[in-house]
Amino acid sequence: MAGWQEISGGVTAPRGYRAAGIVAGLKPSGLPDLALIYSEVEAIAAGVFTTSVVRAAPVDYCRQLLQAKHGARAILCNAGQANAATGSQGWIDAIESAQMLAQVLNIPSDTVLLASTGVIGQRIKMDALKAAIPQLVAAASEDGGDAAAKAICTTDLVPKSIALETTIGDRPVRIGGISKGSGMIHPNMATMLSFVTCDAAVAPSLWQKMLSRAADQSFNQITVDGDTSTNDTLIALANGQSRTPAITEMGAEAEKLEAMLTQVCQYLAKAIARDGEGATCLIEVQVTGAHDDKDARQVAKTIVGSSLVKSAIFGRDPNWGRIAAAAGRAGVIFDQENLRIQLGDLLLMENGQPLPFDRAAASAYLKAAAAGAYLKEDTVLISVSIGSGSGSGKAWGCDLSYDYVKINAEYTT
Amino acid sequence: MAGWQEISGGVTAPRGYRAAGIVAGLKPSGLPDLALIYSEVEAIAAGVFTTSVVRAAPVDYCRQLLQAKHGARAILCNAGQANAATGSQGWIDAIESAQMLAQVLNIPSDTVLLASTGVIGQRIKMDALKAAIPQLVAAASEDGGDAAAKAICTTDLVPKSIALETTIGDRPVRIGGISKGSGMIHPNMATMLSFVTCDAAVAPSLWQKMLSRAADQSFNQITVDGDTSTNDTLIALANGQSRTPAITEMGAEAEKLEAMLTQVCQYLAKAIARDGEGATCLIEVQVTGAHDDKDARQVAKTIVGSSLVKSAIFGRDPNWGRIAAAAGRAGVIFDQENLRIQLGDLLLMENGQPLPFDRAAASAYLKAAAAGAYLKEDTVLISVSIGSGSGSGKAWGCDLSYDYVKINAEYTT
Repeated sequence: MAGWQEISGGVTAPRGYRAAGIVAGLKPSGLPDLALIYSEVEAIAAGVFTTSVVRAAPVDYCRQLLQAKHGARAILCNAGQANAATGSQGWIDAIESAQMLAQVLNIPSDTVLLASTGVIGQRIKMDALKAAIPQLVAAASEDGGDAAAKAICTTDLVPKSIALETTIGDRPVRIGGISKGSGMIHPNMATMLSFVTCDAAVAPSLWQKMLSRAADQSFNQITVDGDTSTNDTLIALANGQSRTPAITEMGAEAEKLEAMLTQVCQYLAKAIARDGEGATCLIEVQVTGAHDDKDARQVAKTIVGSSLVKSAIFGRDPNWGRIAAAAGRAGVIFDQENLRIQLGDLLLMENGQPLPFDRAAASAYLKAAAAGAYLKEDTVLISVSIGSGSGSGKAWGCDLSYDYVKINAEYTT
Repeated sequence: MAGWQEISGGVTAPRGYRAAGIVAGLKPSGLPDLALIYSEVEAIAAGVFTTSVVRAAPVDYCRQLLQAKHGARAILCNAGQANAATGSQGWIDAIESAQMLAQVLNIPSDTVLLASTGVIGQRIKMDALKAAIPQLVAAASEDGGDAAAKAICTTDLVPKSIALETTIGDRPVRIGGISKGSGMIHPNMATMLSFVTCDAAVAPSLWQKMLSRAADQSFNQITVDGDTSTNDTLIALANGQSRTPAITEMGAEAEKLEAMLTQVCQYLAKAIARDGEGATCLIEVQVTGAHDDKDARQVAKTIVGSSLVKSAIFGRDPNWGRIAAAAGRAGVIFDQENLRIQLGDLLLMENGQPLPFDRAAASAYLKAAAAGAYLKEDTVLISVSIGSGSGSGKAWGCDLSYDYVKINAEYTT
């Protein structure tokens, strides 16, 4: 059914984009820590940002910019310092970073978008950043997508990148995306960041609507530790370089594009959840029978975010009572007599009545998940129905292991 | 300032109550698992129950009973099986338990309240329960409060019991209380349970209002793992056996009684948080400057519930950025330029600007907490101000340790 195929190249797979990722000396580790995504022409730009009232300077900067205009030429992202809770000086640093990149790229500074990830409460190392920007611009290339994917990582175990291609008006249209770790992957490392590029021609307001809907079905449905970051940022560019007919309203072509955008966002979101700190498997919760999709997504996210459900799955324990308990406290009204719970193919509860089930088979199912391949056979699927409504939704998370605590209890002092 | 003094006896300290805790063979461990609290005369009864839509049979049973009448003679509580997610059979078991106790006590069955804690999805071992009830009633005595406190525990490390005395109309009035563990202490063990006895004479509706307000400032402000149980129950009895003037409306005497009731609830709530699975210290978050108390309590509870804040404190890491991040995502609107964060006596952020601070001293403060005495010197105090409003509130929790995961990942199969 998928109207698209996977291709290589990540954010530089779509036409008219260049990217780079270099070592700027911002991370103590000496790993790549500065990324650039650049569009040869001004692209339509849409964004979704953290809902926290404690926001990093680059988040406020992007929100202001995108309110004023819906276009952008470049995204500059540093890793190492989050530039969050940095007070007024953090804001000055953000402005200065954008201005310097604009200068070197010779583009208006209000077409530069910013993102940061790293230690909360620490300023960006501005001297190192400024010294590195010319080198970053020089390194930008049409196959720099993978380098950019690496440079935005903090302690992610794997870079996260994807590109899909479909056709609109018989011409290829591509969407590429990269992302980095959810929750606060490392004691001090914050943030979910995701950058999406597209070469279709789309109306600005429509592109923003598509992105917001895609985010609701992807990034807004993952949780690692429930800690919304101060820096969460999703930016999507559409630069029209596919030379395909402009999409200005919903319709067959628009739906095709939005479906592919949603697919890219879901892939990147699931990759983040799977790579959650200490995770040994990906957990997918599917909820059906809700009053509406919003209710279904809320129940799904509550279940996948339950520390007890997560711990039980780490222990490969088919402790379905916790799934019922989590569904019940999701803040969504339903009649527990309609509750149906399934683990993989095993039915555990129906019509609110517990059913006898093969515990050994259930444990085996959970154990098999951990042995699976990244993002594929290692998914633990929990299916829950809460009634006869038409609302459905999914959420993704990971199990809670000793390593989560270990990672997050490490001294930073 | 406290208008009361602590006394011994727990729930049997107030006049006219008897209690018992015995081994009924419901727990595999063979530990005490059946408790009774009995009032010689019908007591005014108020209750606060889980907000989950997946509720244990005894919860629905008590809610129905207290809607119909505001009086009770006895509370029967079993540990070992939660009688939650047990379907229609669980409801039948609850009715049968209440009827049998009423028969043996020779009281109307609609004056028996019920509570259960233990494995979700498992029925109460009814044969063992029925066989034990006569023995339970025979064991009830005026100094049985401690035995009852032990019998309601699941894997709590310590029984939780307190009694306070004040005077109303120059005569002593007492409130006693017992509680058991928060969150889901053990892989399958659910529930926060708390039972409060009082010998004052209070109007039913006023007693319920007092209890609800006390719960909002105590049990509703603790979190161990954010997993609301299917069985959470707080029941408070007031039997008038102090022979003090009846309290029918708010006023000096009512405020005195409510203050003592709130103190009892806060003691029991903090004891639960301190005894959270794997906890090494109690965390208290005080929020001021909010628009109203509700906002302040919400911010406090979000901070104390943050896995990252909890992990950092377990690591004795003064990682204040996480406190700012948690405050920001609490769903309460405030201007981050007004944010003020203090750890113990150390000021870490003011007016949204990070301040230089002595990291060694901050770590030392956190390390000293763990070395402290239960519920006293071992409290980590986090003070946050979010503005200039008059709203304030507190919340309590515990740190997140390896043991939390260990406990909750253990196989139950």
